Amino acid sequence: MTAEEAISLCRKLAGYTEEPGHITRTFLSGPMHDVHRELTSRMQRLGMTVMVDAVGNLRGFYPAQNQTAPRLLIGSHLDTVPRAGAFDGVLGVVMGLALVESLGGKRLPFGIEVIGFSEEEGVRFGFPFLGSRALAGSLDASCLERRDANGVSVADAIRSFGLDHAQVPEAALPKDARAYLEFHIEQGPELESRGLPLGVVEQIVGQSRLIFCFTGKAGHAGTTPMRLRQDALAGAADWIGFVEGHALSVPGLVATVGYLEAQPNAGNVIAGMVRASLDVRHADDALRHLAVQQLVEGAQRIAKARRLQVAWEQRLDQSAVAMDASLVTRLSASVKAAGFPVFTMPSGAGHDAMIVAGRVPSAMLFVRSPGGLSHHPDEDVLQADVAAALKAGLHFIENWGGNLD
Amino acid sequence: MTAEEAISLCRKLAGYTEEPGHITRTFLSGPMHDVHRELTSRMQRLGMTVMVDAVGNLRGFYPAQNQTAPRLLIGSHLDTVPRAGAFDGVLGVVMGLALVESLGGKRLPFGIEVIGFSEEEGVRFGFPFLGSRALAGSLDASCLERRDANGVSVADAIRSFGLDHAQVPEAALPKDARAYLEFHIEQGPELESRGLPLGVVEQIVGQSRLIFCFTGKAGHAGTTPMRLRQDALAGAADWIGFVEGHALSVPGLVATVGYLEAQPNAGNVIAGMVRASLDVRHADDALRHLAVQQLVEGAQRIAKARRLQVAWEQRLDQSAVAMDASLVTRLSASVKAAGFPVFTMPSGAGHDAMIVAGRVPSAMLFVRSPGGLSHHPDEDVLQADVAAALKAGLHFIENWGGNLD
Repeated sequence: MTAEEAISLCRKLAGYTEEPGHITRTFLSGPMHDVHRELTSRMQRLGMTVMVDAVGNLRGFYPAQNQTAPRLLIGSHLDTVPRAGAFDGVLGVVMGLALVESLGGKRLPFGIEVIGFSEEEGVRFGFPFLGSRALAGSLDASCLERRDANGVSVADAIRSFGLDHAQVPEAALPKDARAYLEFHIEQGPELESRGLPLGVVEQIVGQSRLIFCFTGKAGHAGTTPMRLRQDALAGAADWIGFVEGHALSVPGLVATVGYLEAQPNAGNVIAGMVRASLDVRHADDALRHLAVQQLVEGAQRIAKARRLQVAWEQRLDQSAVAMDASLVTRLSASVKAAGFPVFTMPSGAGHDAMIVAGRVPSAMLFVRSPGGLSHHPDEDVLQADVAAALKAGLHFIENWGGNLD
Repeated sequence: MTAEEAISLCRKLAGYTEEPGHITRTFLSGPMHDVHRELTSRMQRLGMTVMVDAVGNLRGFYPAQNQTAPRLLIGSHLDTVPRAGAFDGVLGVVMGLALVESLGGKRLPFGIEVIGFSEEEGVRFGFPFLGSRALAGSLDASCLERRDANGVSVADAIRSFGLDHAQVPEAALPKDARAYLEFHIEQGPELESRGLPLGVVEQIVGQSRLIFCFTGKAGHAGTTPMRLRQDALAGAADWIGFVEGHALSVPGLVATVGYLEAQPNAGNVIAGMVRASLDVRHADDALRHLAVQQLVEGAQRIAKARRLQVAWEQRLDQSAVAMDASLVTRLSASVKAAGFPVFTMPSGAGHDAMIVAGRVPSAMLFVRSPGGLSHHPDEDVLQADVAAALKAGLHFIENWGGNLD
């Protein structure tokens, strides 16, 4: 499969959607059957044994020279956000197929399992990584009881898709798995801004999410002099500037206020209350925690100076996950051998590799995202970049010894 | 009627509401009949001739010593915003009654017409001052065709209330009217912050309303480095700070961003677009126009520096309206004679006096608003302040010569 054909297959799979005219394919929705059918027939043509595990992960196995050989996993996810692009997740599964195909039937000293995870985006159940959690053995009963907006549980959804949730434990990682490799679009502008096709992921950054509430006093926009105001929106705006300035001053830190709700939110009324989100990420958990503390202190300082109240609540504190150092070195060497500059970077987004890495050495290769676009219909990849990833991936496979070296 | 009784009457009228447990009385709604009945009987007991004009204004006339005498109008509005307080508007009508009552039947060299305007707040038809516009002769056919949320036109509402909209022209100002006086709660914290019971309004400030749209680029909060962002919310926040700082630097200027809507408004997505309102008011129209220009330029400058687009649209450009200088002097003298400090101030809010002033010399007396509260169930007045306003008002009436001096 050439890069052109891989892209073409991604676009074909994008046609299997819940929402005509858009790409929307959530966990175990109807069109996931079509994706499975399409990929299964291609895998079988490559001599792979295919099954769908109890959480709906599509798993194709390309056997090794001998049955006791170790196993390399190559995977990513097949679900999408609503109105998504064609490459987020799907590209990583298609890359697995393309790499197996490029072996031309040649058997290696290790088997290759290509996995299409059933769920990563967290759209349907507000809880991401259902597929890779099952693989990692951490999809417990409480996860299966989660319900979607229609009251359908994860277990119900599994049954409706024709699977048996009682068998979820059997979806766990095969004992002979020695490494996990994930190809994924970058979903950001870093590679493009540096003119690079590929990035080797060193770690997936940790993440804090908080919600802040600034309370002042609603008032008449015409009758309340500036000096007597307790304007919650002006206070929140002041803090947003502080958050941005602070993040710019700490290398590798990103901090985002993406959600803001003012009350009463009327043009002629001074805002009495503002709720705003804060998302903080850094590869170093200690620096992330320090940043959160400083941004909270900034909110307190600004609120005090403006006679506002401020309250906050932490919603998420997720640690950074390192990729396997040895695999990162190997993958970097393959990128170099394929003739491309080696650039190692953190991933600011979560990926299945973050979950799998807890059980087996993992690595990720990022492919440049034109315009940094993702979760958007215009999300794209360059054919030359996909070719570069295929070339580097093939070098990796041909030189990996089963992680036994 | 003592100040205590006046307050008590306002609270009684507040019981006539469309929404039990709240004070909500829009243009010609059912409970307005109850208010009219209550006030009519009180006016008649004071020897006043009462009628409801074709737009639903309640008009009680207390005759002069002779029929050819000039007429003093005292009025305010009887409608309320939804879930209002008990004093906004109503107090000014009750003050008119209280002043007539305090004459104890004595006839003056001028008649007094107390007017309870049917509409000032603009709630039902999104178009304020229906009552005073009819008095000023500017409630034309296009106004009568406006429709409320249920598709009912102003003309329909007039008919449903038992009135004839064809007679609206007859609601116009009587030819013998020589002055208009309006008592109103301040609706702001200026008087309270200065420890003053009363304020003489010199002018009603002009007002500009604009809507701004900042467009950047939505992006992943984890994968987009700070230096590559085009964050529309950070840009809007920067501008909100500029608006506030600029308004603080210009005496008498108020500028408010009270409405803000971010898109997609998700905690983990950099905002790609923000819409925000701007409300600018100043007693001096030239200074207001200059401020709007500077705030637009600030938005352009900030947008350019941040690689954002900014667009704006003017929604309102309403000129300041001066109160009559001679009446302001007389009213100030009455405040002083009543034993209270004279403080002249602009009104940051619109009032019926703004409409009436186009036809007859007008003046307003503000009564302190505890906590600056208005359009709120906790809106209040102090009994001593109402007593002060009654004392000053009575002095004004006893010393006004019919504006013929």
